Amino acid sequence: MSGSLVVVGLGPGSIDLLTPAAGRALQAATDLVGYETYLDRIPNTLFGGCRHASGNRVEIDRARHALTLAAEGKSVAVVSGGDPGVFAMAAAVFEAIEAGNPAWRELDIHVEPGITAMLAAAAEVGAPLGADFCAISLSDNLKSWETIERRLRAAAEGDFVIALYNPASRARPHQLGRAFDLLRATKSPQTIVLFVRSAATPESRVVTTILAEADPAVADMRTLVIIGSAATRLISRKDHGPWVYTPRAEQDVVR
Amino acid sequence: MSGSLVVVGLGPGSIDLLTPAAGRALQAATDLVGYETYLDRIPNTLFGGCRHASGNRVEIDRARHALTLAAEGKSVAVVSGGDPGVFAMAAAVFEAIEAGNPAWRELDIHVEPGITAMLAAAAEVGAPLGADFCAISLSDNLKSWETIERRLRAAAEGDFVIALYNPASRARPHQLGRAFDLLRATKSPQTIVLFVRSAATPESRVVTTILAEADPAVADMRTLVIIGSAATRLISRKDHGPWVYTPRAEQDVVR
Repeated sequence: MSGSLVVVGLGPGSIDLLTPAAGRALQAATDLVGYETYLDRIPNTLFGGCRHASGNRVEIDRARHALTLAAEGKSVAVVSGGDPGVFAMAAAVFEAIEAGNPAWRELDIHVEPGITAMLAAAAEVGAPLGADFCAISLSDNLKSWETIERRLRAAAEGDFVIALYNPASRARPHQLGRAFDLLRATKSPQTIVLFVRSAATPESRVVTTILAEADPAVADMRTLVIIGSAATRLISRKDHGPWVYTPRAEQDVVR
Repeated sequence: MSGSLVVVGLGPGSIDLLTPAAGRALQAATDLVGYETYLDRIPNTLFGGCRHASGNRVEIDRARHALTLAAEGKSVAVVSGGDPGVFAMAAAVFEAIEAGNPAWRELDIHVEPGITAMLAAAAEVGAPLGADFCAISLSDNLKSWETIERRLRAAAEGDFVIALYNPASRARPHQLGRAFDLLRATKSPQTIVLFVRSAATPESRVVTTILAEADPAVADMRTLVIIGSAATRLISRKDHGPWVYTPRAEQDVVR
């Protein structure tokens, strides 16, 4: 088969964080497939071909559509926010390949990485992911809430910094409060909690608080929540919000 | 104070994965500070100012030097491989600020994110980080081996996909074998293990195996090791290595 498919990470929003490799992959495509909000980010100067927009939450249908176009000989780019391999379109594409037309396995398929939300969110406030960390999606659309609780408990047991993707949506307003309650059972009430909304865009907003006082209503679909390890710390500043970072070492290694 | 300091993520190696924002931050700097291997990646066409190269493993000294230059009024860029917030220079800079000259807190400080190694490594093979995952540095230079074991156990308990940074070096040849042994005690011997060396460069090399057979000697300083969750799967292909991905769902959701 002559068609190709590349799953492209657009990064957190600003075109300034789109890698040159991702930009070239978009320019080389004949067809773009993606959630309409992500397609709208791509200017006509970067891509002049055919755009196939779809709604949110139809990832598998979108992946099949893209694979069908590629099997017809098109050069398809599936666009994804952030990094396509982190709670985004790349896994959906491979799910569709495994369950779909065996000929799809012979297509030229490629993943083009991007800046995922937790990296942009961390950069807004300092270096909260400076030591071992984990990333958990709070959405129970595709996995059970029991699995999410098991992972939250394990993350607390390992004293990982925790990045929570998809902390809340209109359809799932209560998960984040339940997650905070679960973590309060084992982590210090003084644990630092960050709400970073629309990181790396002009609308970015940071709320820095502690686990005892964290209000789940602060989060929405555009928010990335970071919950510190026991070592995560604040550096206060005049006239600015504090920096937040997690030291690389367990003990003070600054001599 | 008029000086500034930006911690810039260069990504995994290729200039194609340096974001435009990071490139502009380098161009705007008067002074570059970094590990010599990373400085060598930056062409003179991108930066023509003063370069301050240092050896590896002197992160705090390097951070203090950069802060001192910024306090003198320079526009300093501290360069870091991958993303500066993930096992890299950003945490060291904030450690130095917290322990250092109080005036450093008033400097204009910024972090510019980059593509971290696990994202580039994942993109080489498919979407192994497609579900919840954690990132652990196996280096015990700055934390105890007991902490690393505690986190590996917690990661296995939570059935996270595990990305291991710094899996081996000449000074630490035995950690990865000990980590595999620990994980073999609780994870299936069929768990997929990936060794991805020099991801996103022309020298990239992937070894795909299973936990029962994983040979720690395959890893070196340039290798990122990914250990699958129970759900991580292979898709075999003719004439190519398999794709590896972790489905977003616990059960098959492809209808």
